[in-house]
Amino acid sequence: MKQSVTSLEIATPGRALVEITRETAGWVGEQAVETGLLTVFCRHTSASLLIQENAAREVRGDIIDWLDRIAPEDGGWQHDDEGPDDMPAHLKAALTGVNLSIPVVNGRLALGTWQGIYLAEHRTRPHRRTVVLHLLGE
Amino acid sequence: MKQSVTSLEIATPGRALVEITRETAGWVGEQAVETGLLTVFCRHTSASLLIQENAAREVRGDIIDWLDRIAPEDGGWQHDDEGPDDMPAHLKAALTGVNLSIPVVNGRLALGTWQGIYLAEHRTRPHRRTVVLHLLGE
Amino acid sequence: MKQSVTSLEIATPGRALVEITRETAGWVGEQAVETGLLTVFCRHTSASLLIQENAAREVRGDIIDWLDRIAPEDGGWQHDDEGPDDMPAHLKAALTGVNLSIPVVNGRLALGTWQGIYLAEHRTRPHRRTVVLHLLGE
Repeated sequence: MKQSVTSLEIATPGRALVEITRETAGWVGEQAVETGLLTVFCRHTSASLLIQENAAREVRGDIIDWLDRIAPEDGGWQHDDEGPDDMPAHLKAALTGVNLSIPVVNGRLALGTWQGIYLAEHRTRPHRRTVVLHLLGE
Repeated sequence: MKQSVTSLEIATPGRALVEITRETAGWVGEQAVETGLLTVFCRHTSASLLIQENAAREVRGDIIDWLDRIAPEDGGWQHDDEGPDDMPAHLKAALTGVNLSIPVVNGRLALGTWQGIYLAEHRTRPHRRTVVLHLLGE
Repeated sequence: MKQSVTSLEIATPGRALVEITRETAGWVGEQAVETGLLTVFCRHTSASLLIQENAAREVRGDIIDWLDRIAPEDGGWQHDDEGPDDMPAHLKAALTGVNLSIPVVNGRLALGTWQGIYLAEHRTRPHRRTVVLHLLGE
């Protein structure tokens, strides 16, 4: 049984779902693990991770719109140190979460056909985000 | 330290919370691991996983109703390729997530007394869903 | 590769986010693992876990308010065996989840600078809650 760790540095364009499936699966492939467990961890509180539809682009747009409705900028939040998009970003990150666990089976991530891994940027302006990948297996 | 992997194939009746605690705990028991970590992974984007109350049936009905309110079919979504329940199903899956991590302690899942593991089917019609179980331990 | 397991018993003051970063990181430090994976698991269905901003106190208040809006007590829920805060507590727990996975890198939890680990108590009255910590690594 062995472990591998790396970090992905991701430049986001502001509010968006940024797909990181290729970078993630590529790194996992290089570790040559047949069976294992990948943990993806986002080191932020206003960006998060989710697994979602990788085909229809409209799905990503609808998710972003829905998050805006559910955690609106005009919600009367107490915390607005960094502007009106600050607190909604925290709420969206709380809703979607900052960690994912994906089994590795037969040397590949056990993602379904339509599943992609996304870093969700919830701030309006571009940011640099760090995602830690931890792989355990053999 | 050893690893075991299997898949559960689950036939859902359409929108519902389908309990999979027994199948999951049963398979874990067969692996004879004293201490370990179980990962449950749903390979879909319109079905998801959650741990919730296993006693009062009304709780499951209320969760389904609440998800309908929070991600309504008449939300004006751009993505409706597969009908009005399509995009709400993606949103509900994004909210609840597709992976669970449950420690194994003293040979058993460390679930609380009232916790059950549920596959949440978010589409209106019945589907066949695949859930991967990955166990690590000894 | 070794495993360690413990439980934290947490007395909550009723509805609140109770930070457990120090207890959690302290126990992880004692295990002297250089690289590994920590799983945090809450054994309840009306309390949950989340990773959020550890600096501005207003963020926690806004999260609590937002959860009240999104899962209100006057939602007309079927399940109210234990009072009006019962079903909303289940919904809030379903939204935020009961498990976290955090890599250990260079002997420390890979949390970002602003990330804290919180037990979210969703019931109105004080409770005693159990959180299982499972560490795998070497």
